[in-house]
Amino acid sequence: MLARRFQATYGMVCMTLVTTFTLPTTRGDEGMYLFNDLPLEQLQARYDFRPSDAWAEHLQQASVRFNSGGSGSFVSSQGLVLTNHHVASDTLQKLSSAERNLIRDGFLATDHAQELRAPDLELNQLQSIEDVTDRVNASVSEGDSPDEAAKKRRGMIATIEKESLDQTGMRSDVVTLFGGAAYHLYRSRRYTDVRLVWAPETAAAFFGGDADNFEYPRYNLDATLFRVYENGQPARVEHFLRWSETPVVDGDLVFVSGHPGRTQRIFTLDALRYLRDQRLPHVLDTLRRKEILMQQFSLEGQEAARRARDELFGIQNARKAYTGMLRGLQNPATMSSKGASEARLLSRLEQSESSAAMTEAWREIAVVSEERAATLKDSVSLRSDLFQLALRIVLLTAENAKPNEERLAEYSEAARASLLNRVLSPAPLYRDLERVKLADELAKLAEYRGFEDELVAEVLAGRSPEQVASAAVAETQLMDVSVRKQLIDGGSEAVSASDDPMIRMALQFESAYRASRAAGESLDERERQAYAVVTAAKRLIDGKGGYPDATFTLRLAYGTVKGYQEDGQQVEPLTQMAGAFEHAKEHEDQKDFELPNSWYQAESRLDPAIPLNFVCTADIIGGNSGSPVVNRAGELVGLIFDGNIQSLTSDYLYTDEQARAVSVASQAITHAIEVIYQAPKLAAELGR
Amino acid sequence: MLARRFQATYGMVCMTLVTTFTLPTTRGDEGMYLFNDLPLEQLQARYDFRPSDAWAEHLQQASVRFNSGGSGSFVSSQGLVLTNHHVASDTLQKLSSAERNLIRDGFLATDHAQELRAPDLELNQLQSIEDVTDRVNASVSEGDSPDEAAKKRRGMIATIEKESLDQTGMRSDVVTLFGGAAYHLYRSRRYTDVRLVWAPETAAAFFGGDADNFEYPRYNLDATLFRVYENGQPARVEHFLRWSETPVVDGDLVFVSGHPGRTQRIFTLDALRYLRDQRLPHVLDTLRRKEILMQQFSLEGQEAARRARDELFGIQNARKAYTGMLRGLQNPATMSSKGASEARLLSRLEQSESSAAMTEAWREIAVVSEERAATLKDSVSLRSDLFQLALRIVLLTAENAKPNEERLAEYSEAARASLLNRVLSPAPLYRDLERVKLADELAKLAEYRGFEDELVAEVLAGRSPEQVASAAVAETQLMDVSVRKQLIDGGSEAVSASDDPMIRMALQFESAYRASRAAGESLDERERQAYAVVTAAKRLIDGKGGYPDATFTLRLAYGTVKGYQEDGQQVEPLTQMAGAFEHAKEHEDQKDFELPNSWYQAESRLDPAIPLNFVCTADIIGGNSGSPVVNRAGELVGLIFDGNIQSLTSDYLYTDEQARAVSVASQAITHAIEVIYQAPKLAAELGR
Repeated sequence: MLARRFQATYGMVCMTLVTTFTLPTTRGDEGMYLFNDLPLEQLQARYDFRPSDAWAEHLQQASVRFNSGGSGSFVSSQGLVLTNHHVASDTLQKLSSAERNLIRDGFLATDHAQELRAPDLELNQLQSIEDVTDRVNASVSEGDSPDEAAKKRRGMIATIEKESLDQTGMRSDVVTLFGGAAYHLYRSRRYTDVRLVWAPETAAAFFGGDADNFEYPRYNLDATLFRVYENGQPARVEHFLRWSETPVVDGDLVFVSGHPGRTQRIFTLDALRYLRDQRLPHVLDTLRRKEILMQQFSLEGQEAARRARDELFGIQNARKAYTGMLRGLQNPATMSSKGASEARLLSRLEQSESSAAMTEAWREIAVVSEERAATLKDSVSLRSDLFQLALRIVLLTAENAKPNEERLAEYSEAARASLLNRVLSPAPLYRDLERVKLADELAKLAEYRGFEDELVAEVLAGRSPEQVASAAVAETQLMDVSVRKQLIDGGSEAVSASDDPMIRMALQFESAYRASRAAGESLDERERQAYAVVTAAKRLIDGKGGYPDATFTLRLAYGTVKGYQEDGQQVEPLTQMAGAFEHAKEHEDQKDFELPNSWYQAESRLDPAIPLNFVCTADIIGGNSGSPVVNRAGELVGLIFDGNIQSLTSDYLYTDEQARAVSVASQAITHAIEVIYQAPKLAAELGR
Repeated sequence: MLARRFQATYGMVCMTLVTTFTLPTTRGDEGMYLFNDLPLEQLQARYDFRPSDAWAEHLQQASVRFNSGGSGSFVSSQGLVLTNHHVASDTLQKLSSAERNLIRDGFLATDHAQELRAPDLELNQLQSIEDVTDRVNASVSEGDSPDEAAKKRRGMIATIEKESLDQTGMRSDVVTLFGGAAYHLYRSRRYTDVRLVWAPETAAAFFGGDADNFEYPRYNLDATLFRVYENGQPARVEHFLRWSETPVVDGDLVFVSGHPGRTQRIFTLDALRYLRDQRLPHVLDTLRRKEILMQQFSLEGQEAARRARDELFGIQNARKAYTGMLRGLQNPATMSSKGASEARLLSRLEQSESSAAMTEAWREIAVVSEERAATLKDSVSLRSDLFQLALRIVLLTAENAKPNEERLAEYSEAARASLLNRVLSPAPLYRDLERVKLADELAKLAEYRGFEDELVAEVLAGRSPEQVASAAVAETQLMDVSVRKQLIDGGSEAVSASDDPMIRMALQFESAYRASRAAGESLDERERQAYAVVTAAKRLIDGKGGYPDATFTLRLAYGTVKGYQEDGQQVEPLTQMAGAFEHAKEHEDQKDFELPNSWYQAESRLDPAIPLNFVCTADIIGGNSGSPVVNRAGELVGLIFDGNIQSLTSDYLYTDEQARAVSVASQAITHAIEVIYQAPKLAAELGR
């Protein structure tokens, strides 16, 4: 299943994205296009189709972004939002308890009163895009050092965002695109009263489990419905997607509107080598360590397994995705292909006047990559929810004392509401799980930095990682939302005076965290400037146009419903409802291949021929999970939920030879809600 | 469960053990004593017990070593051998097929004809120990460099072993003890016709699975019976253990006779820091990688899971054991305790004349540890059974051309029979499993050494690790034992001329493997010499005596049956048969907590009060699995199968505060065989 954004999987851990971009020479249906720069000519040329402004505006406004990492769409005038079960699972987990296991058992609200409010979901609906490139760049003077330039840009971005927020009340994000060649202000409506309406059982949503994940053919009902509320009432929504009356068929042109999280298509060969040789092996070691840790915790019993479920799933999903990415890079064919285009570009550049200055950028990227490799184990944070809450509180109160334009990005005025939504979330936390995670994170910190390291010595203070974690988790008061609120309201003074062990620990980390973050942002800036030059070089050779690398902002992709060849066999693009039962039967000896009882009870009433899943060539990546798939008429035909195993290289290389996006067919969703989940009223509301 | 020796788990991968030793200042019941240097005075003083020569001789001769990694004992005059199910599982796996799953379902031969011959088991029964220290040392001249000295010693050892083999026909191993202060020739009878008689279901043997592993209280029937044959008939055995008529009770003095694999009690603080900061984190990364790989493979279906079962179990067991070892080292209390004794020794040494020369040894160990840390990722082999077979064949044919005393140790004349027993094993190999393992090993090789590395470039030759692995595994003929035999018989010429892709790959690795091994042996020798000085220093301060660190040779440990305190609760030393059923009920929601049907069917006929498992303070470590536990009368009272979680630090620090060895009570074995497995004839043979 498509990786949810990694930072989303790990709650509030912030990951700085290097926003880079890709240019013209696209292959097949490649591209994740900005809604203010749609590929109209390509679509005309390739598919004889030209979307109208109204078509695009409607699709944009019907699309939503989930702060838990993923995409979705409005599907009724009464605020219904369709997304994936695996995007919703973060919320399903938080709404569950020992007595109510929504992840395993699913959920159905038969009326509005039964709908369950998500503790900390925020949905964003993009309203407008404004180009603020000139204003951002004007803040920088010639002769500024990279660090000074970065600081000024960040300051100007904070100012623009705050102005916009003050003027419109809307969430305002300045997005860096094309390696800093463009800055766009994205204004979004925020929905924070989001309620769960319907979710199927995991056995249906994630049928086939980890074994089938990223495979095809598939038979998954990876769908969930939420409803957004305003002022305590279901929101009235103007732009929502209607259901297509006819299901997709082989060869159909389709569009995907969603929020791809991050791609690295612009990466130079040296940057890809860094990924292959350093970063991905390191990330995989970390993921496997966490996976085993969560598995071991889950062995303690059913309730322990329930508590660790969503995190374990996220880790397994990421591990499988990164494994595929690394395998792709370890295939010399990938590097040759990337190397050939780079060599072609560089050799053409040689004839240009500014060739020397431009190729310097490639060297700078190689140097930055080497410096990054050296910092992979400079761990300065701990992936424990309680610790992260403490660190947020420490940073928030300290940043509040600074002028808006000097703050760390996520503590700016414009970002404040979204941050507080997270920090003050009433979502449950589990001391047993936190203790195990924190102990391992502290052990890892000591392994990475060494026991003689100043930070490690200060934090451990002669105790073992387990002893420190046990004491801190047992004694912290941060489980209590009101304690968090009091600390935030009390500001730096209250934080300094606090004897909460988790707050004390966060204070011990604060300066190392700030130093590491500053160093990282400095590397980001150098890389950004170098990629801006690479961009210019590409434009010089290939001409203007194209799409920027993914940045978790709204994009449009397109493609056709199309099968592919695998091991000499043709894989058909569509599966049908009947296939799910056959698939279960073929794998009856395997874990995670049992359909829920609700399916068997409804089997005789189901239409066996109704399409269940399908693949298409649209260019997607993690973050696209939950994206609507629409036809030429802008009607809903599917719901993106995965890429096949061959698509795992899409991070750095699109190909439509075998790589495919995998969707739930829209008809299967209504049919299942009606026949299996017996909610005809809900089914009737969809698309109306 | 006690880690089987790691090299055993991984088949024929050879791991050079640095044989070091420990001296007097023992705590409580600490010690793994040589049978030719038993702790008679301690036993007299502590327990008023003095074993006679006949008592010791009988116990020694009744003990056997398994080449699959583990211990056992003769328990009938007709050659029955008792060991753990988890020691036997390597053989159970090899005797299983898609149609016959002995690991899961267990086995019972109702007569000799039904007994199943193990494809490659070798059991060793120690016959005599001879001190050959003077002869080995006489081979070295003053002024020899460490490498020259090591070479001469190895040559002399090969010569002594071959002479002994020629004279006696017995397996002859010269064992390095006390850091090279002593060399003993161990002569053993080899049994290679070993047949499976009885094994319980894994659900009974490994009841509680990975969750309960290394925990206590326990309720495991971790036992299996083999029978050794000579000339096609059950071997007539003079020394076998009789069953004690009375079960052990709290406070009983007991003895453990077995083959502890490796301890590192002599390690200096710097060497322990190397373990804590470098080696163990690295080993754990490797184990977790392999564990996830085998889990993923197992997801493919029941047959895939069966094929990977024993390897996955071995990895999980090792991962849990190493995690405990690392946690112990990460506890500052451990390092303080070790540091305090080292500081005391060093400060006393200061008054000695040779102080400076001696403390130099501590520095040398620190330097060697640093050099080892730098080589952790110098991978020059691949953990795939097919590749290992190929490498053995390549090395064997090359080494055969050299004089005996110049060969790599395991290719010497004396070691030849045991090696061939492995290389020509008819045990099944699975192409699907081998492909997955080899692909990952090749990927790891490239990650560790870099894609530009000469060896990596030569092996991959422009293909991806997966492509190389797929081709080699698909095309190799080494699955066929007769092909292996032909290559060995054909010698270097046949090997050079072979176009078998696995042989070609092994040839590509040969020189890097030899270079790396030589470098490793050179580090070993420097370390050995340094630890010999540390030994001398300890003797100077503490006096002579004590026991050498474990070397997978026969040792005697002693202790008492005794509970312990955990989290403020008293843990009783014994569990009873009834407890197994209660334990299953308490954990009915958990995987691996279901007893087999055979147990439920027999429940009403079982004696609920019969002791099932017990703990004692005897000093054991991985390799002791399957060791008999006897009472003062030398009668069998138990069967070692595990250490508790607190014992996982025993590798470098014995303590009897909480650390305990865990055994199956001997009465439970006979009772289960009689009542549950309904084999009264077999039960009657035990101890007779």
